[in-house]
Amino acid sequence: MSILSNRSKAVDSVVAEEAREAGTLMKEGKMVVSLDSGDPPRYFKTPKYIIDAYIEALRNGLTYYSRGDGSDELKDSVSKRYKRMYGISPDRGSVIVTNGVSEALNFLNSAIVNRGETAVLFRPYYLQYPVSLGLNGGRAVIGDYDESDSWSIDIDGMRRRFRRMARKPKYMMLTNPNNPTGTVLGRRVLKDVVDLANEHNVLLISDEIYDEMLFEGVRYTSVCEVAKGMPHIILNGASKNLNATGFRIGFVVIPEDDKVSEAIRGKLYDYAVSRLSVNTPAQHAVAVGMNSTKEHRVELRKFMREIERRVYLSFRLLSENNYLDVVKPHAAFYLFPKLHMNELRFRSERDFVYRLMDETGVWVREGVGFGSKNHFRVVSLAPKDILEDAILKINEFCRKNAKR
Amino acid sequence: MSILSNRSKAVDSVVAEEAREAGTLMKEGKMVVSLDSGDPPRYFKTPKYIIDAYIEALRNGLTYYSRGDGSDELKDSVSKRYKRMYGISPDRGSVIVTNGVSEALNFLNSAIVNRGETAVLFRPYYLQYPVSLGLNGGRAVIGDYDESDSWSIDIDGMRRRFRRMARKPKYMMLTNPNNPTGTVLGRRVLKDVVDLANEHNVLLISDEIYDEMLFEGVRYTSVCEVAKGMPHIILNGASKNLNATGFRIGFVVIPEDDKVSEAIRGKLYDYAVSRLSVNTPAQHAVAVGMNSTKEHRVELRKFMREIERRVYLSFRLLSENNYLDVVKPHAAFYLFPKLHMNELRFRSERDFVYRLMDETGVWVREGVGFGSKNHFRVVSLAPKDILEDAILKINEFCRKNAKR
Repeated sequence: MSILSNRSKAVDSVVAEEAREAGTLMKEGKMVVSLDSGDPPRYFKTPKYIIDAYIEALRNGLTYYSRGDGSDELKDSVSKRYKRMYGISPDRGSVIVTNGVSEALNFLNSAIVNRGETAVLFRPYYLQYPVSLGLNGGRAVIGDYDESDSWSIDIDGMRRRFRRMARKPKYMMLTNPNNPTGTVLGRRVLKDVVDLANEHNVLLISDEIYDEMLFEGVRYTSVCEVAKGMPHIILNGASKNLNATGFRIGFVVIPEDDKVSEAIRGKLYDYAVSRLSVNTPAQHAVAVGMNSTKEHRVELRKFMREIERRVYLSFRLLSENNYLDVVKPHAAFYLFPKLHMNELRFRSERDFVYRLMDETGVWVREGVGFGSKNHFRVVSLAPKDILEDAILKINEFCRKNAKR
Repeated sequence: MSILSNRSKAVDSVVAEEAREAGTLMKEGKMVVSLDSGDPPRYFKTPKYIIDAYIEALRNGLTYYSRGDGSDELKDSVSKRYKRMYGISPDRGSVIVTNGVSEALNFLNSAIVNRGETAVLFRPYYLQYPVSLGLNGGRAVIGDYDESDSWSIDIDGMRRRFRRMARKPKYMMLTNPNNPTGTVLGRRVLKDVVDLANEHNVLLISDEIYDEMLFEGVRYTSVCEVAKGMPHIILNGASKNLNATGFRIGFVVIPEDDKVSEAIRGKLYDYAVSRLSVNTPAQHAVAVGMNSTKEHRVELRKFMREIERRVYLSFRLLSENNYLDVVKPHAAFYLFPKLHMNELRFRSERDFVYRLMDETGVWVREGVGFGSKNHFRVVSLAPKDILEDAILKINEFCRKNAKR
């Protein structure tokens, strides 16, 4: 009898293995430039007014457990945020605070998915979706974002797909803005997706953790704006918009009052209570951060202007590489190029990623974890010089390994 | 088709319901005195040197993701702690940092237990054990701590029990010092338990979150001191010993290098990486807290002297109540009295707990969540006057509801 459970196979270690490899190279003194981790505070300071609020909480003795489902203060600030940004008014009961979106995903999959049931994921997906689903015995029904259409959704294809499904999926999952592609789904396609979910009576979950990290001129629609009257769940948090990944503050918003929404809300509350609390002083810091709308606007603009520059630099340089294609991003800080494998001497994108790391010291993430072969993810957060140097190395590495 | 999964029934809401009831009473202006929550920072300040370290981390920009399995700094301080206190030397790879022991329990049950498999829990157990086990399809085989023997373990009874088991359990779980009883298992019985686990080749997990919260003159043995050479897992964290519940820093120590330990270690690492990180600045604060041995000794002595006084006050007053029995605690801050139900006009301990709250405003936790009927848990952290008043109310309430 193995000591490990069967389900635990779902938590495999694509990322963990890459991290080990990078760690080994660093120890050997081979400098590794990480374009791997979507972690903005490594490059940009978390805003001072948020840090000050955190310190204030610590000084005021906010070191005890909060309510399991989150402090009222934070929930109220989440409500206000959704009122302000999207015109909806979730009450305290509609908000559950979690240890990042990661915990929210684990709670949701555990609460919703029975063994053998399915959920619709669009590829490329965020790595944890299939892991969390698989840990709970669920199976992914894979849709595709359409790379040829700026990673949008082919809704007619999806509609046909739904008709062929033997069993109704438990939920359909969107990521908007998207990780790993950095693209944004438009209002029209979102409405189509909502209609499709509605037709088939399928719960819609939308991971919108990058919803304020938009590039100049990009218009954004939240699912909560177009899914009124049907059960849906929004995932978000402080990690990206407030540039505070290390706080681990996520939240779930369940705006509607139908039976499905009520049931999930009640159950998530129970999950939250069972693990006692999320970090209490961080909740205060995030509440203040979300309520400080003026300071936030200033910070966000500065932050995003610089990130946009870096992403567009990467985009421009990668576009000069004849051995890959890359879609122009509109948000966040990711690019997800596709390698022309038939023109290159790599056995797989894994081979590409490991050899790239080994031979040039540049660390990107292989696409397979996101469900997409022949792709890799580039995080464009490093300063211009480092970024430029790294991307040029990627381009040179491709040229060197071209078949012709 | 219900939107909720079958497994989610395991997260029931004994605590959540009580909290709702208390909330309602508070809103109605009926003062509720909580002897419910094991949350020391509500009553005692988290030590200043720990808060200072936390603030320093925030000022120094430690707001990004840490390593998934915890910062090297914190892991090293955990290693040193175990070397100093128990003479073992777990390396960095043997330590996994988690969002409290709660998350560690969820990871472990998910990683180890297949649906239909069993684990041995001793009753009364910490509430989350059966919840986390049940969420992963596991079934509890219930042993008993022996109330007539200071909540120790009847090892011969347990040995007979093991012989009758059709299937080998996946693990055996201890809590030492115990929540909800506040008692401590002696070295001899621990050795017997280790032998039993060894005979049957069963993994031993020991939740030792209160291992420094000992009353004057109490000797303590960690499982890691007596389980050398066999696979075992120690759960601990900053919540209680460092008086920092709201930080949510727990850790798992897997000291041995056998195949079972190695497999669990590797898998927990994968779980940890998949949810990215634990709160980063809090990890620094806890590392400093654990390394500051002198300051810690002074703080802990002060803290425990006062808690011991409060617990003994509760014990003395509860001992004067003829309608219940209570075992003298040796650690932590809990008491777990047993009601003489046949002499009282309550339908159940739930009836007792809810009516006590409603009629006197005193909130204790019903025993059923801990697996023990007719019991209730008293947290003795409130200041002397409030505590005394509350316990006298409990006693008076029992007298008023006596059958004779």
